[in-house]
Amino acid sequence: MSQYKALKQECYEANMQLPELELVIFTFGNVSAVDRSKGVFAIKPSGVPYKQLKPEDMVIVDFDNNILEGSMRPSSDTKTHALLYKTWEHIGGICHTHSTYAVSWAQAGRPVPIFGTTHADHLTQDIPCTPELTDDMIQGNYEHETGNLIINTFLKEGFSAEEVEMVLVQNHGPFSWGKNAAKAVYNSAVMEELARMASITLQVNPETPRLKQSLKEKHYYRKHGKNAYYGQS
Amino acid sequence: MSQYKALKQECYEANMQLPELELVIFTFGNVSAVDRSKGVFAIKPSGVPYKQLKPEDMVIVDFDNNILEGSMRPSSDTKTHALLYKTWEHIGGICHTHSTYAVSWAQAGRPVPIFGTTHADHLTQDIPCTPELTDDMIQGNYEHETGNLIINTFLKEGFSAEEVEMVLVQNHGPFSWGKNAAKAVYNSAVMEELARMASITLQVNPETPRLKQSLKEKHYYRKHGKNAYYGQS
Amino acid sequence: MSQYKALKQECYEANMQLPELELVIFTFGNVSAVDRSKGVFAIKPSGVPYKQLKPEDMVIVDFDNNILEGSMRPSSDTKTHALLYKTWEHIGGICHTHSTYAVSWAQAGRPVPIFGTTHADHLTQDIPCTPELTDDMIQGNYEHETGNLIINTFLKEGFSAEEVEMVLVQNHGPFSWGKNAAKAVYNSAVMEELARMASITLQVNPETPRLKQSLKEKHYYRKHGKNAYYGQS
Amino acid sequence: MSQYKALKQECYEANMQLPELELVIFTFGNVSAVDRSKGVFAIKPSGVPYKQLKPEDMVIVDFDNNILEGSMRPSSDTKTHALLYKTWEHIGGICHTHSTYAVSWAQAGRPVPIFGTTHADHLTQDIPCTPELTDDMIQGNYEHETGNLIINTFLKEGFSAEEVEMVLVQNHGPFSWGKNAAKAVYNSAVMEELARMASITLQVNPETPRLKQSLKEKHYYRKHGKNAYYGQS
Repeated sequence: MSQYKALKQECYEANMQLPELELVIFTFGNVSAVDRSKGVFAIKPSGVPYKQLKPEDMVIVDFDNNILEGSMRPSSDTKTHALLYKTWEHIGGICHTHSTYAVSWAQAGRPVPIFGTTHADHLTQDIPCTPELTDDMIQGNYEHETGNLIINTFLKEGFSAEEVEMVLVQNHGPFSWGKNAAKAVYNSAVMEELARMASITLQVNPETPRLKQSLKEKHYYRKHGKNAYYGQS
Repeated sequence: MSQYKALKQECYEANMQLPELELVIFTFGNVSAVDRSKGVFAIKPSGVPYKQLKPEDMVIVDFDNNILEGSMRPSSDTKTHALLYKTWEHIGGICHTHSTYAVSWAQAGRPVPIFGTTHADHLTQDIPCTPELTDDMIQGNYEHETGNLIINTFLKEGFSAEEVEMVLVQNHGPFSWGKNAAKAVYNSAVMEELARMASITLQVNPETPRLKQSLKEKHYYRKHGKNAYYGQS
Repeated sequence: MSQYKALKQECYEANMQLPELELVIFTFGNVSAVDRSKGVFAIKPSGVPYKQLKPEDMVIVDFDNNILEGSMRPSSDTKTHALLYKTWEHIGGICHTHSTYAVSWAQAGRPVPIFGTTHADHLTQDIPCTPELTDDMIQGNYEHETGNLIINTFLKEGFSAEEVEMVLVQNHGPFSWGKNAAKAVYNSAVMEELARMASITLQVNPETPRLKQSLKEKHYYRKHGKNAYYGQS
Repeated sequence: MSQYKALKQECYEANMQLPELELVIFTFGNVSAVDRSKGVFAIKPSGVPYKQLKPEDMVIVDFDNNILEGSMRPSSDTKTHALLYKTWEHIGGICHTHSTYAVSWAQAGRPVPIFGTTHADHLTQDIPCTPELTDDMIQGNYEHETGNLIINTFLKEGFSAEEVEMVLVQNHGPFSWGKNAAKAVYNSAVMEELARMASITLQVNPETPRLKQSLKEKHYYRKHGKNAYYGQS
């Protein structure tokens, strides 16, 4: 029996949430789950419809993109996952979708502005949108460079990958992460909803200002950190 | 056996309507139900996914925020509910959601204009949007101040909490109430639909005027008051 | 056993299509079905949630608004139905909903422009929007006057109620009719879809012209009239 | 037993995907599947609701519109299918829907711009929108001329029907094709999603530029051609 059975099961269940939450159609999207003690992650195989997916189909890969177990080819975005796991040692799961509103903002090349407390419950700033990749990066090691682009955007802008667990890759779409695969999926669903709310907000009032600092902090810290009082401890 | 069993059941059933009516995702939102004879209300525990919720999880709280029964922490918005129950003695249930269109109007900081008879069937004026809280209020007793903000908006503007059973808290989202928890949830679903219709109406005709007085009154009073002839008596 | 059993069943089944087709929530909307040989129609009782509705709840009314059978109060819009049946002797069913896009166009006070063949498959002109009722009409015999408003709009504008089986009552919402109750409901669903398509069309191209005459006629007459070749004969 | 049983089954299953994917309501839309060895295709009968459809209802037609088997009248769009099969010998299935966003763009008379990688995963250019038919063509052999219009648009603009498996017929709606009927349906669902994303993208940023060449090619060729590495080989 595979030593990765539990990891594959976690990865499978998180992937199956994507069609359930209406974040993907057909074969779009992919979720991975990491096992830090073994230095590997499980990821969805490439191009397999969700309806046909089975736990044992998940592919086991290490952070240098070596396939350790699995009879199928892993997601074409695997190198992006690998680099994020290698660089951000605190994350336990990664999710990538082509959800409608998040992709639309990524195509528009705009960060999603923080307009309300639904947003501040999850992060205290705009959902970042990366710059474009250069032609060289696209024609080179594209998926690896996509990982670099995300990481460098966070570095350059001083964003915290602990607080900001989501990003729009310009022209492409949303990536999210979290302490485990389920939380990464949760963040993708929240990102889609925030993107949708922001587009309606702008239609209703094109001059909507961003949320003020006190309210951003209030909502974020009632859910996060040592003084949080949202949820069950 | 708990003396609050029936109250918890009413509260539970009303909460379970929120995902059913697509007004919330994950753990968003909360509904409470009051027992005026006992001076208490039941409310959803904080941060629990609807799929895992059980009737016995509901928390019993009095109007001064004392927890009387329950092993879980009540909703982080409990103090808002408590103050509304304490001040508005006629209401039997309160509902708070993060539904998409209502939140978008709250973020835009605009009351939802009364454009048609669907709206006038429920209230004869715009759905109010509160002003912002001050930084002091946010950093102080935030959820209590949110209740104060709602009540003071109604007092200052001369709105009737008997007629107007819904409000947008600016930058945050919708709150609604009613004679019981089910009616409060009903009002939240109606508010979401009115907000959606209003945004489409403005897209189709940005100059749409508000409904005229005679039609507002006709529709409201065919459903409400002693001469109502809508529904079964 | 009621002599109206089959009529009530037809009416009930058509009403139950409204939540199925997502044209109503809660108790919104109403459908009626006529029996011309008996000079009566069956209609939904007022304010009853669809989930609780039973075939025997349908109320039997004549064209002068006399209730002939039923223990419940009929829809508050009954007089509108009665007048339409009395005036337009060819129609067999009437449907009224508060569907989102159709209501939004009614609130905006704009006819839905004929932009494409989906529209021309059903009628060769814009979906009409009535003028407003006067205050006197609203404060008088309101629901009867709503029927008059629809009929007079068709008379004055020269619209054919045989071809144009749908209308927006300004500030209120959509009414449709057809050879039977099921066709009336079908027309309400089509109207909602046409209204939705028209709003997106205008967002994508605010200068979109109406469909040209040859294409209007081609699509309408391939589905209607003696040379129709759509469907099974 | 019919020699076309397998073909009818393939055609039936692809048609039943249309309501499942929410691309049609009622009787809208039609899918066909070809058998090149026999020189025939199976197509949905005209005007039959999907709920009543059975595999044996599919009609067998040759490329010159002769009905070879079937008791029902074939789709009114049959001649469009026949001409596309006759002209483009590589295609195995054709799909036509009245999906909301694709129809809206067709009504607006605009190609859907290539804004992101979701689009480039499927084709490297805008989704084409044909010019209008002339009155003569509409009043003549309309459905045959619709086929000609599609083919001539591709010829004149130099589009490849191998790469670009979808088109908007102006004022009418989307047609798509593929190696088989299932792929044609898949392309219709993708086209609807791309049209929806493009309309939201333009609302969020009306100045959104098209995707750059390197990214178009990267995404298209990681899924298509001899160096593709998406999916399972």
